[in-house]
Amino acid sequence: MRICEVKPGEVEIQGFIENLRDKKSMQFVVIRDVSGKIQVTVIKEENPQIAEIFSHATLESTVKVRGKAVANEYVKLGGIEIIPDFVEITSRAEALPIGPESSIDQRLDYRWLDLRQDKNILTFQVQTAMTKALREFLLKNNFIEIHTPRLISAASESGSEVFEVKYFDRKAYLAQSPQFYKQMAMGSGFERVFDCGPVFRAEKSRTKKHTTEFTGFDLEFSYINDFDDVMKMEENMLTYMLNEVKESYGEKIKETFGVEVIVPKLPFPRMKLKDIYDELEARYGYKVDESEKIDLTTEAEQLCAKLAKDKFNHEFLFVTDFGPQKRAFYHMRKNGIPQGYDLIWKGIEITTGAQREHRYDILKAQAEEKGLKKDVEFYLEFFKYGMPPHGGFGVGVDRMTMVLLNLPSLKESMFIFRGPDRLTP
Amino acid sequence: MRICEVKPGEVEIQGFIENLRDKKSMQFVVIRDVSGKIQVTVIKEENPQIAEIFSHATLESTVKVRGKAVANEYVKLGGIEIIPDFVEITSRAEALPIGPESSIDQRLDYRWLDLRQDKNILTFQVQTAMTKALREFLLKNNFIEIHTPRLISAASESGSEVFEVKYFDRKAYLAQSPQFYKQMAMGSGFERVFDCGPVFRAEKSRTKKHTTEFTGFDLEFSYINDFDDVMKMEENMLTYMLNEVKESYGEKIKETFGVEVIVPKLPFPRMKLKDIYDELEARYGYKVDESEKIDLTTEAEQLCAKLAKDKFNHEFLFVTDFGPQKRAFYHMRKNGIPQGYDLIWKGIEITTGAQREHRYDILKAQAEEKGLKKDVEFYLEFFKYGMPPHGGFGVGVDRMTMVLLNLPSLKESMFIFRGPDRLTP
Repeated sequence: MRICEVKPGEVEIQGFIENLRDKKSMQFVVIRDVSGKIQVTVIKEENPQIAEIFSHATLESTVKVRGKAVANEYVKLGGIEIIPDFVEITSRAEALPIGPESSIDQRLDYRWLDLRQDKNILTFQVQTAMTKALREFLLKNNFIEIHTPRLISAASESGSEVFEVKYFDRKAYLAQSPQFYKQMAMGSGFERVFDCGPVFRAEKSRTKKHTTEFTGFDLEFSYINDFDDVMKMEENMLTYMLNEVKESYGEKIKETFGVEVIVPKLPFPRMKLKDIYDELEARYGYKVDESEKIDLTTEAEQLCAKLAKDKFNHEFLFVTDFGPQKRAFYHMRKNGIPQGYDLIWKGIEITTGAQREHRYDILKAQAEEKGLKKDVEFYLEFFKYGMPPHGGFGVGVDRMTMVLLNLPSLKESMFIFRGPDRLTP
Repeated sequence: MRICEVKPGEVEIQGFIENLRDKKSMQFVVIRDVSGKIQVTVIKEENPQIAEIFSHATLESTVKVRGKAVANEYVKLGGIEIIPDFVEITSRAEALPIGPESSIDQRLDYRWLDLRQDKNILTFQVQTAMTKALREFLLKNNFIEIHTPRLISAASESGSEVFEVKYFDRKAYLAQSPQFYKQMAMGSGFERVFDCGPVFRAEKSRTKKHTTEFTGFDLEFSYINDFDDVMKMEENMLTYMLNEVKESYGEKIKETFGVEVIVPKLPFPRMKLKDIYDELEARYGYKVDESEKIDLTTEAEQLCAKLAKDKFNHEFLFVTDFGPQKRAFYHMRKNGIPQGYDLIWKGIEITTGAQREHRYDILKAQAEEKGLKKDVEFYLEFFKYGMPPHGGFGVGVDRMTMVLLNLPSLKESMFIFRGPDRLTP
């Protein structure tokens, strides 16, 4: 709890009224702020005016208290209590419509109240530490931060699943990812860039991993030799991040979520998709039809948690050598094999990364093969006037938070969740 | 220029071909990367294969060169040249359709090529240092980073000038600012938050300061005493930022843009709007009608640069005591005077800040007075269950970059500019 000394011997605290016990001759009021809790003790006879104020106060109202900070070994909250000589209710709370036991939908209806739970505030403190560390790592490695446009003129990447915007007398679309623009920056000679911001998916999926708006953290860098350089960048970045998060919040995360933050060993294990299916069958009897082995099935993705643990004693697994049918047209191919990967963390895909095709003619042919033409015309232009070899990847801030803290869904790891049925508050 | 040693005595460089002089017996090729330039020297007779490659190379193609780095006092670029034994053109450039002398509209059509200019890359390196410093300052002061939603269900703040989104079978809107949601975080007890991301304005204005999408940097914090606490936070943050930017890029900015980065003295000068008009008339003979003195006219805003310099020898000026007609409904008022300010930097408004009205009944009345009802209903809910006294402000990353570097318009300080007539590339 933050205690400010306003003058010698007099302190001030501000916060929410967490608890209030109104006894015959005493009042015990627990005040909560973002950093902790403290008890305010009122002896009614000595301070009838203050007792009167508290007797009408409601829980969760905000309050300003001035008085003496006194050591008291019987007080659980830090062994200190405040004996007030001034109290002001700065805002009055109605009775709260939800509690921690409410359903997730009720809690989302009143998300601002739901967020008052200690574990929810901690979630966003951890998320803050996470993005801070990601940026820190990249800035140390000479990345430039860019802010790519979210309003775009073409339906981008795939043509489906984009939101349409009324843009004066024409149509615009909301970016599904900063993919095309972070690659554009490679054509500008920026060499290394990252972009952190909202991306939009007009998908009606209602799984724990889906949302219509999330915070993407994307990067792209030039002059790579192959996609192993991309995996190296990512494993180094994530290891740096987990180290920082563990140092700042490792204990609190363990206490609150029962999760051990593990700083991974380098390098992360790498496996070809085909070999994963072989091992999943051999180890756990998991079989799928040959035709499905061009992509990772949902069950296989989940089993990767177990495989990574059993085979490598690791939480992460890079999966390579997907089928070209299942990869974006802008992934470079060698002998028909896409030069990219998925990264699985605790059985959940958190990244797709790749070396990009930077040669105009091949890229154009790959786009046409996927039936893309008009929507990618502006993007192909970026490759006509010199384009360094490059690669990159993206992670979702919300999804990483969910996986890190073992949260049940994105609804818990997003400040405000957005889905097909939810656009409020 | 980044030179990598690939084995003892052998280095590798990669970059764009900036210049190529093909002489009778020699070739001099200047290669450029994000960090600088270097000369590659080919003695044709000794290396006919490499000479052949360069003789067909086009300017702005990307190239990989391996060879020996040799000191040569006659070479301007760092006194080092590369004698190559391997050259690969990694991508071939067509002739560039624009140059630095092209009009701004032509340059924006090919923005990715325009960005190759040294001064444009520097602009975004400086912008990166700027946002890094802003975040650093706030994180040191216990702010939590939040990612507020850009898809919202109500037309927010004013009802006008918002973009409409087709959201499945209903309508959504694009956020004009994170205002309502950063205040929501105060109701969640987050205490101190910031949000950096895109915001959208469906305005047809075509001034140097207007765009339909820009990067907002917003913050909000609880338990303030008055709006002077908000001004203090802002002046400390900007001073920290300018100190960092000056240290990292002060000299380069002076060389490239002819601009001296000035670390401002604290505190920034503060003046009431009325007093500004009095002084502008007394000092510079600038007169406006009494009825206009509830707001800062465009001319007065510009004259504030001169006034701040002449009166305080300062680049910044806080302007307070605007008329309530000209301030948002959520600004707290005392004796009818909005408890907020504008901050003017070099004659351009970069911020509106304020203490917010946190008391439900008064806030509701102020909203109704401005004719707002349905659109702010969800926002008013945030104030019913306990809301700490709080305040905050926002700056535009692009606008601050423009002012810092004295750029002619936002078109130069945004990675990709968006306006009523421009949605590409």
